[in-house]
Amino acid sequence: MSIAYYNGRISRPEEVTISLNDRCVFFGDGVYDAAIGTTRGIHQLDEHVERFIRGAKQLAIPLPYEAASLKPLLISLTKQSEEAVYMVYFQLTRRLEKRLHSAKGIIASNLLITVTPCAMPTPDERVILFSYPDKRYSYCNIKTLNLLPSVLASTYADEKGGNEAVFVRDGIVTECAHSNLSLIKNGTLYTHPESDKILSGITRKHLLIKAREVGIPVVEKRFGLGELYMADEVIITSSTRLARLAAQVDGIRYEIKEGSIGKQIAEKLFCEFVENV
Amino acid sequence: MSIAYYNGRISRPEEVTISLNDRCVFFGDGVYDAAIGTTRGIHQLDEHVERFIRGAKQLAIPLPYEAASLKPLLISLTKQSEEAVYMVYFQLTRRLEKRLHSAKGIIASNLLITVTPCAMPTPDERVILFSYPDKRYSYCNIKTLNLLPSVLASTYADEKGGNEAVFVRDGIVTECAHSNLSLIKNGTLYTHPESDKILSGITRKHLLIKAREVGIPVVEKRFGLGELYMADEVIITSSTRLARLAAQVDGIRYEIKEGSIGKQIAEKLFCEFVENV
Repeated sequence: MSIAYYNGRISRPEEVTISLNDRCVFFGDGVYDAAIGTTRGIHQLDEHVERFIRGAKQLAIPLPYEAASLKPLLISLTKQSEEAVYMVYFQLTRRLEKRLHSAKGIIASNLLITVTPCAMPTPDERVILFSYPDKRYSYCNIKTLNLLPSVLASTYADEKGGNEAVFVRDGIVTECAHSNLSLIKNGTLYTHPESDKILSGITRKHLLIKAREVGIPVVEKRFGLGELYMADEVIITSSTRLARLAAQVDGIRYEIKEGSIGKQIAEKLFCEFVENV
Repeated sequence: MSIAYYNGRISRPEEVTISLNDRCVFFGDGVYDAAIGTTRGIHQLDEHVERFIRGAKQLAIPLPYEAASLKPLLISLTKQSEEAVYMVYFQLTRRLEKRLHSAKGIIASNLLITVTPCAMPTPDERVILFSYPDKRYSYCNIKTLNLLPSVLASTYADEKGGNEAVFVRDGIVTECAHSNLSLIKNGTLYTHPESDKILSGITRKHLLIKAREVGIPVVEKRFGLGELYMADEVIITSSTRLARLAAQVDGIRYEIKEGSIGKQIAEKLFCEFVENV
């Protein structure tokens, strides 16, 4: 059963009412995070909560809960929902006093949490990608509610029959609209370095750990769309779908060959999830 | 009296409740506009509605009303509010079906309108400005709800005792956090050309018309922060405050001298407002 929490009140998601005193309505003035879980627990909960709190601090949004008390709340809600596999989504927004851009002196915030059913990730899911201009701001390292460019890119890819959009900024492939992106070429894994142009993905981090574990060199450097087209394999990662290999980017096809490195790493991430929760 | 309208229901702003099916909550997936008015009417209403509808079309957000029926609704609400001088704010957001980035197939939207009291603009108000890095996206020509960078900049300026922040992108002054910016040097008015890096301000447009009317050459070109510091006068424009001359930018002071061009144009914009509404 889907469940929602808003400032202490627990209800069904469709019963949540947000008032105009929430600055998400006018400014997207908030941060969020989302994790996948099962009845056994929330996957990589510590890392999600840590990123959430870091984001709130970067934007100076007051936290009603510290990590120590947020975690039990999230766990308690996932238990109440009784979903077998779920996404737990949590967002913190600044309280509005008057519709002024300046947030000076605002010390109150709103906490929204939803638990909704989620499809079980698999290591075999493949995706079709389309490139899209990356005209986003340079706060991509913070998981904020200013997601319109990702909405436009995702809608574009979806309308073309794709699953995700690949952002390209000044010729450089940064990441996808709601996933990180890596490529494998001649046995090495390449991915955009951490910066304000990409999100510091938790599954991205674990992908790099798994690659190194199986002896695949990892190079964090920028690459262009041409290099993406010429890659042996392309992998996208996200918290709810883990790792997915690309079947196509802009119509260029990628074969999964015998001994695929991407498949090997995707399976390791999947096993980690299954063992963890 | 402040008044609000949300999808057909009229109430006090504090009574408006927004549900999680409004994509403003998760993505800032919407456009807005705001105008100033008096009991005699809404200032430059046609231009505001035109920009609002253009923005909705650029983001492919379905419009529940065309311009012809939106205008009487806005006017009717301002009359009901009975405020002497007010801001009428209107925003259109996409309806949420499921929390997915892609908006493919969404054909419903939400319309929020508020009428709130507003201070009467004056041609004599001066402002203190502070520069701030412009890390915004390249959709600045659309008036969207993705306003977090403007929130951060405005908060910074406010905390330093200023009124507005001046955005600087790669050394170029673009505009302010919620105003356009122009400078006067040796009798010529300079302002950033229209592009996806600035909002196409309605008061900006009228400022350029007034400058030309009084024989001031207008040059739409990019300039740096150094040139702003060396300007004779600095003017910022917005729909609710019209034109305001800068007293300071980053501590650099600007004097209003005998025969000030900025003052002359600010007065013309003020007279236009008084004659119009």
